[in-house]
Amino acid sequence: MAKEIERKFLVRNDGWKAGVTSRTRIRQAYVTAEPDRSVRIRTRNDETAQLTIKFGTGLLTRDEFEYDIPHEDALEMIEFATGNVIEKTRYTVDFKGFTWEIDVFEGAYRGLVIAEVEMASEEDEPLLPAWLGQEVTGDKRYSNQALATQRLRPELVHAISH
Amino acid sequence: MAKEIERKFLVRNDGWKAGVTSRTRIRQAYVTAEPDRSVRIRTRNDETAQLTIKFGTGLLTRDEFEYDIPHEDALEMIEFATGNVIEKTRYTVDFKGFTWEIDVFEGAYRGLVIAEVEMASEEDEPLLPAWLGQEVTGDKRYSNQALATQRLRPELVHAISH
Repeated sequence: MAKEIERKFLVRNDGWKAGVTSRTRIRQAYVTAEPDRSVRIRTRNDETAQLTIKFGTGLLTRDEFEYDIPHEDALEMIEFATGNVIEKTRYTVDFKGFTWEIDVFEGAYRGLVIAEVEMASEEDEPLLPAWLGQEVTGDKRYSNQALATQRLRPELVHAISH
Repeated sequence: MAKEIERKFLVRNDGWKAGVTSRTRIRQAYVTAEPDRSVRIRTRNDETAQLTIKFGTGLLTRDEFEYDIPHEDALEMIEFATGNVIEKTRYTVDFKGFTWEIDVFEGAYRGLVIAEVEMASEEDEPLLPAWLGQEVTGDKRYSNQALATQRLRPELVHAISH
């Protein structure tokens, strides 16, 4: 079991692109998405796949269990998605001792870019790169689960151009 | 992905006990139990554990994905059970080329004994041992999921003594 502590931001400009250290194509869907628990299927680079089960309603911290599963199983389970299948490319960028993940969405959410940093404890205080926009930590509209299950909300995408 | 095809019966007497080939203590709970999908956590002999995801509403056939998980993860996830945690001992008995599983329930369902045979295809016709009682294939009240999530139903247990 792992605890998840993170801060999440919209992205103001392309400044992060100069520091990219990795790039992963992600396809993901939820087979269960309830307020206090979720089961997510995710494929990476059309090669590997994980199943992730999360419990809890806390904004900063949730109980999380993740397992590798056969890619073929993932494709079959994605057929049973609750809501939207999300496609995005995840880039990593190192900044002052922390690794940031920048998700560039495709498909229905094209134009949406979200940056996230994971912390080892709630006391960690990662410095904020200049290319970050508005903080959306705890804004449920931008959670993976909400993006997958809510009706598509164009205003989420347009927010980032300001 | 495996398809599940099975017949399920109540058990009339202890005739099966002479043919037991294995014995496994099972503890299981659902973290998701919806009409068309379920996520089940199961421990065996307090040593190993599996996560099982099932989709579909068919009575005979369902899509099923099963993965080994750390026993410790299972214990943590069982804390998030939807409904009852089921405890039972599963015995296997070979009869005329088929393996029967006999589940002897404990706790709230003490007295309930269910026998189940899995078939490779819907054309298989396993011979029925004399110790079988009423067939309950497709009777949702006796599904693992219903036993775990429904309010306890004493009449399910009492049915077997007749």
